[in-house]
Amino acid sequence: MFSEKMDLRLPGPVQVPKEIQMAMLRTFDHPMMDYRNEEFQEILKETTDASKIIFQTDNPVYVLTASGASALETSMVNLVGPSDTIIICSIGYFGEYLTEIAEHIGVKVIKIEASWGETVDPEDVRNVLKKHTEVKAVYATHCETSTGAVNPIKEIANVVKETDAVFVVDAVSSIVGTPLYMDEWGIDIVAAGGQKALMLPPGIALMTLSEKAWSAIERHQCPSFYFDLKKYRNFLPSGHTPYTPNIALVNGLLEACRMIRKAGGIEAEYRRHACLRDMTRAGVRELGLKLLVEDSAASPTLTSVVVDFTDADQFRKMMRKDLHVALGGGLGQLKGKLLRLGHMGYTDAADILKMFGALELGLRRTGVNVELGAGVAAAQKFWLENPHC
Amino acid sequence: MFSEKMDLRLPGPVQVPKEIQMAMLRTFDHPMMDYRNEEFQEILKETTDASKIIFQTDNPVYVLTASGASALETSMVNLVGPSDTIIICSIGYFGEYLTEIAEHIGVKVIKIEASWGETVDPEDVRNVLKKHTEVKAVYATHCETSTGAVNPIKEIANVVKETDAVFVVDAVSSIVGTPLYMDEWGIDIVAAGGQKALMLPPGIALMTLSEKAWSAIERHQCPSFYFDLKKYRNFLPSGHTPYTPNIALVNGLLEACRMIRKAGGIEAEYRRHACLRDMTRAGVRELGLKLLVEDSAASPTLTSVVVDFTDADQFRKMMRKDLHVALGGGLGQLKGKLLRLGHMGYTDAADILKMFGALELGLRRTGVNVELGAGVAAAQKFWLENPHC
Repeated sequence: MFSEKMDLRLPGPVQVPKEIQMAMLRTFDHPMMDYRNEEFQEILKETTDASKIIFQTDNPVYVLTASGASALETSMVNLVGPSDTIIICSIGYFGEYLTEIAEHIGVKVIKIEASWGETVDPEDVRNVLKKHTEVKAVYATHCETSTGAVNPIKEIANVVKETDAVFVVDAVSSIVGTPLYMDEWGIDIVAAGGQKALMLPPGIALMTLSEKAWSAIERHQCPSFYFDLKKYRNFLPSGHTPYTPNIALVNGLLEACRMIRKAGGIEAEYRRHACLRDMTRAGVRELGLKLLVEDSAASPTLTSVVVDFTDADQFRKMMRKDLHVALGGGLGQLKGKLLRLGHMGYTDAADILKMFGALELGLRRTGVNVELGAGVAAAQKFWLENPHC
Repeated sequence: MFSEKMDLRLPGPVQVPKEIQMAMLRTFDHPMMDYRNEEFQEILKETTDASKIIFQTDNPVYVLTASGASALETSMVNLVGPSDTIIICSIGYFGEYLTEIAEHIGVKVIKIEASWGETVDPEDVRNVLKKHTEVKAVYATHCETSTGAVNPIKEIANVVKETDAVFVVDAVSSIVGTPLYMDEWGIDIVAAGGQKALMLPPGIALMTLSEKAWSAIERHQCPSFYFDLKKYRNFLPSGHTPYTPNIALVNGLLEACRMIRKAGGIEAEYRRHACLRDMTRAGVRELGLKLLVEDSAASPTLTSVVVDFTDADQFRKMMRKDLHVALGGGLGQLKGKLLRLGHMGYTDAADILKMFGALELGLRRTGVNVELGAGVAAAQKFWLENPHC
């Protein structure tokens, strides 16, 4: 078999459509696009304007030349310092990651936790905010990538907007796939990456901020040079970025926005991802495997399957080598105990069926007596019976 | 004319060779390379090993997913804080940029300056270091991109290595094109970018550090999360980067290293760039134009031409529109008064001749009575008479 053949069913990085690959190649048409030229200024403006719909916001969108992790740090160093307190709604590995950033900076953290696979209760946030009026910001992961659970962001936003605290959402692996209405729900900062449902290779982060967030940022001296958001806002009217932009990924992002629009818009993306999730969950159930997250909190972008019959990472290695399908594994406390099936971005119903076909073979090879084709059939059935697919 | 036709004779971004474009496209072969997989670990290791020769060092090379500017901030936030003092050898816009970063962080700066176009006297560095024993680090731009002047790094290194101060060199626009011997000269930190003579599109920065630098870094608590160099060193044995790497640019960098090796190695690159510089200077002189920098300090990667006959930026606009050649302009105090001709990376002798052919037409159109073909001929003559070309 071709050694390079590989179907990515990972929760990032994701398959990059040819349209985006080609759009990124436009960077080299001249053979190099000059980012100080009007052509690129126009592309950047069109891109950031088009990106607003991704966040369901009228606020400007900023593109950072850095990994998704940077957007999380950026939001924090622009809002709070060592004498400040924040709440982190942590429901898994990336909630802990937020805490790690906060601890690195020296910010005091009040953690509101749930078991991995479950989600935070907004009433807990209300109670902590009542008791701790000094809280400057509330952080919540939207889709927790390590588990595939989705925090009740709308409800948490409802609680936070009654206070002076700024509400920051890590939407890295939810954006585009999972409904998120920044303005309507009253979220203050959304941090996202391109390498998930936006279908881009890694390298940029996206951020957008409410006026409430900017007021807090104005009152705070940001210790970072590169991540000082005031610089980004000051550069906005010029049509430039404060530092050399990742030209190729901006071109790719614009194409991603065009593709989404052409395919029916952001609401159609939400429906499409929900369908892929539900096909996947139907198949997993049919194979007698255990889903980590309940239906009510299940992410449309990835699905976690609990593995108790073998070492999940050995299983993944075999799937990659023998079947050329790459599945995600468990992180942190769930390492070796989980398969994370990615179904975001450039994924269609047939891809889900292919995944189940391969998964069934892998399970058989591992000695798990699944009925061949059963997972596939369950997913197919869901697709046939649901008009939103 | 094809509106996309454009020959880049800029001091960055530069023309990206097809080999590198194709190497970057390997990122999408699967169609997406998984950076958590062994394949990428091997690529990253090969790339950083191959990159050592660029710095003429045995120290590990680190790849940051961020613009070149980040490497400058990174070096600073890892070495010094608000109570510390550094020296900055500033000879132009990017020396001032270093000062801007230092001021943002709150570091005390002792500036050793030269007029734009000239370079710093190492004896001045010696005198300041004698008087100010509290100096923690000395910063110097290697090639000052705003002027094309090259600081005497070897001589400054000789001065600094007798002290406890760490010597940091901004080699963003010099690396590969301008001789730099990190270990032999005793430089402690070199910061570089990919988008200059390394022939890559923007998006990554490269750094390498001496043991002396690491000792200083160990004693200092880095306030940045993303730019904490200790994290990079801790990740080194694992073959991973601490944050999602820019996969495409790592692939591109590896190909750049291969191309350089195949073309005769780094010393051959130094000779090649010196030839392109000298061809350019011969042509500029022949056209009766004024060179900003003296021969002894002239960068092999770009050449600044003083423009007193028209507004340089208007001239550039015309060159771009009518002749499809993009030239660099002046920055800061030299805005509108300079043409900066880039001749780094993927540039050959014929490109220089093309540039002069177009430049001569542009000058004529602007009313400057140059002899057509004269600049071209001077450059050609140099090439014929110099065996290193």
